[in-house]
Amino acid sequence: MDRDDGRARRPTISDIAALAGVSKASVSKSVNGQSGVSESTRRRVLEVAERLGWRPSARAVALTRGGSGAVGFLINRSPDLLSSDPYFVDLLSGIERALTEQGYWLLLQIGHHATEESERAAYADLAGSQRVDGVFLTETRLGDPRFDTVRALGLPAVVVSKPWARTDLPWVGSANPGGGIEDAVLHLARLGHRKVAYVTGPQDRSHVLYRTEAFLAAVADHGLSVVGMPRTDFSPDAGARATLELLDQRERPSAIVYDNDVMAVAGSQAASGRGLSTPHDLSVVGHDDISMSRWLTPALTTVRQDVIELGQMCARRLLLELGVPDPGDGWQSLPDPTLVVRGSTGPAPTS
Amino acid sequence: MDRDDGRARRPTISDIAALAGVSKASVSKSVNGQSGVSESTRRRVLEVAERLGWRPSARAVALTRGGSGAVGFLINRSPDLLSSDPYFVDLLSGIERALTEQGYWLLLQIGHHATEESERAAYADLAGSQRVDGVFLTETRLGDPRFDTVRALGLPAVVVSKPWARTDLPWVGSANPGGGIEDAVLHLARLGHRKVAYVTGPQDRSHVLYRTEAFLAAVADHGLSVVGMPRTDFSPDAGARATLELLDQRERPSAIVYDNDVMAVAGSQAASGRGLSTPHDLSVVGHDDISMSRWLTPALTTVRQDVIELGQMCARRLLLELGVPDPGDGWQSLPDPTLVVRGSTGPAPTS
Repeated sequence: MDRDDGRARRPTISDIAALAGVSKASVSKSVNGQSGVSESTRRRVLEVAERLGWRPSARAVALTRGGSGAVGFLINRSPDLLSSDPYFVDLLSGIERALTEQGYWLLLQIGHHATEESERAAYADLAGSQRVDGVFLTETRLGDPRFDTVRALGLPAVVVSKPWARTDLPWVGSANPGGGIEDAVLHLARLGHRKVAYVTGPQDRSHVLYRTEAFLAAVADHGLSVVGMPRTDFSPDAGARATLELLDQRERPSAIVYDNDVMAVAGSQAASGRGLSTPHDLSVVGHDDISMSRWLTPALTTVRQDVIELGQMCARRLLLELGVPDPGDGWQSLPDPTLVVRGSTGPAPTS
Repeated sequence: MDRDDGRARRPTISDIAALAGVSKASVSKSVNGQSGVSESTRRRVLEVAERLGWRPSARAVALTRGGSGAVGFLINRSPDLLSSDPYFVDLLSGIERALTEQGYWLLLQIGHHATEESERAAYADLAGSQRVDGVFLTETRLGDPRFDTVRALGLPAVVVSKPWARTDLPWVGSANPGGGIEDAVLHLARLGHRKVAYVTGPQDRSHVLYRTEAFLAAVADHGLSVVGMPRTDFSPDAGARATLELLDQRERPSAIVYDNDVMAVAGSQAASGRGLSTPHDLSVVGHDDISMSRWLTPALTTVRQDVIELGQMCARRLLLELGVPDPGDGWQSLPDPTLVVRGSTGPAPTS
């Protein structure tokens, strides 16, 4: 909000228009060197702009260099799933924060692409129509075809979170994406849990691979047994279903780690339907620390990664890639995810 | 997803490029009548396009008519608050669903504008740079300056949800925005509650005004007492604070209605901190039925309004405004909000 106040005090195109006695469109044409204004108007506008100490925004500079002043974000997800997982809105918030500071716009598309070809066509459309100067790539996969797509299109890109596959594209994220999962397993081991399960996501996503690796290494370190590692599509329904299947096994887990918070919440409710209360009978750990997690009863033990911060850093990194002189600092290092212990984990049941 | 499958089967620019033996950029230039391709290439491309039965998307048609093929959505909120309230991501999901079907892009800005002038400048930038063909207006206020802004800019606009102030702009939403609140009060009255409170939002928002009006009419109808009606900024923190203040009053409510789900969840936790459990000691009702509501323990009684559907309808209405011939049906009537009864409401305590 402070930043917005700061922006509001900067002289605007409207201030110039008022003082020069012309329309805002004329001001815009004058400062951008476009046709449609007389030379005398242009001169008057530029004089007023200089007097007010008006500086064109980073976006305006991009425009005069032939850029679009916008960057693109394609989320290859069904809109319904998106609604159930606040990760993306946090990421969007952070991206918007950094872009708004620099006067850049975000061009957004959320929709599931049935084929790689359809996804490629969307990037080609963005690049071909010169609608955006660069793009974000989220949820990169093993053998992700988008790496080649953006390279072939000559489209600047920043990868959100550490990619599993090697790429020469810049990426922003924590160095150890599985750090929070390691902490979670240690925490459960200390509480006396011996049989644990991990409800995870599709095994071709980079972040799922990093966390799975971390989970398996940590349970081995602490001598725990993994009694199940069901894969889901990250939806709460899938989280609830996976939980019931784990609880119906002969070897039941006394603690379950989930790959996001909404699955942990749904899993806890599913367990409650079987008469198992959290954390007395079953400990649950989420991932992401979405804003509602601390408001739940019991509040959710979860892995915090600052997704808003991640979005902000990724946007700054992309702006740097586009030649924005000073997009803001801090994209160099995102802290590793850490465990936040709250009420949903407790000592292993004695029976 | 079915729709995506349908899209994938349509011949694409890539198919044409492959068959005509040219680059996708050349296909794009050829079908859009742009320069940079030879006449013989253009002819070959158009022949292949016709043979494949390729149809330009609604967006491509818009482009040839001089439009941008994109619409704009400015959310005047701090990014942080946005992350805590899933209403906007649902709205975004619905908007994206309808836009993607028609090949339109969404230009998004999320950021708190400190002044009306700064907000107006953002719309002027959108319109002046011809980045978008139209915009959505959400959370309209009493005397909303944006109505005049878009009119002065000649920018087509659709108002999301019924505006309180009169406007000749088209709007999409349910006819009775307070319908769910009426049902909630009736439900509480039938459960024997006599003292109720309503944790609401800023009193200049249209939807807050409609719901407040509905709440007051309904409590009068059923002979209940209103023991408080605190205003908040819709954040969970504010919801928790308001709840504690209500519980500290001499006249305590036995049931609280909240203007969104996240405040209801936070309020329930705050009450639990005072030793009051939901629904035994305090009934709570939310609003919006966000996807997590049914996964909570106890699941949340709340007012369902299909926000994804609302977003989809608004986008179709805007596309109609832009002359897209067949943007899809169903924007004519959004059902009134309705109460969904779950575990967070119960009989009034007898003491």
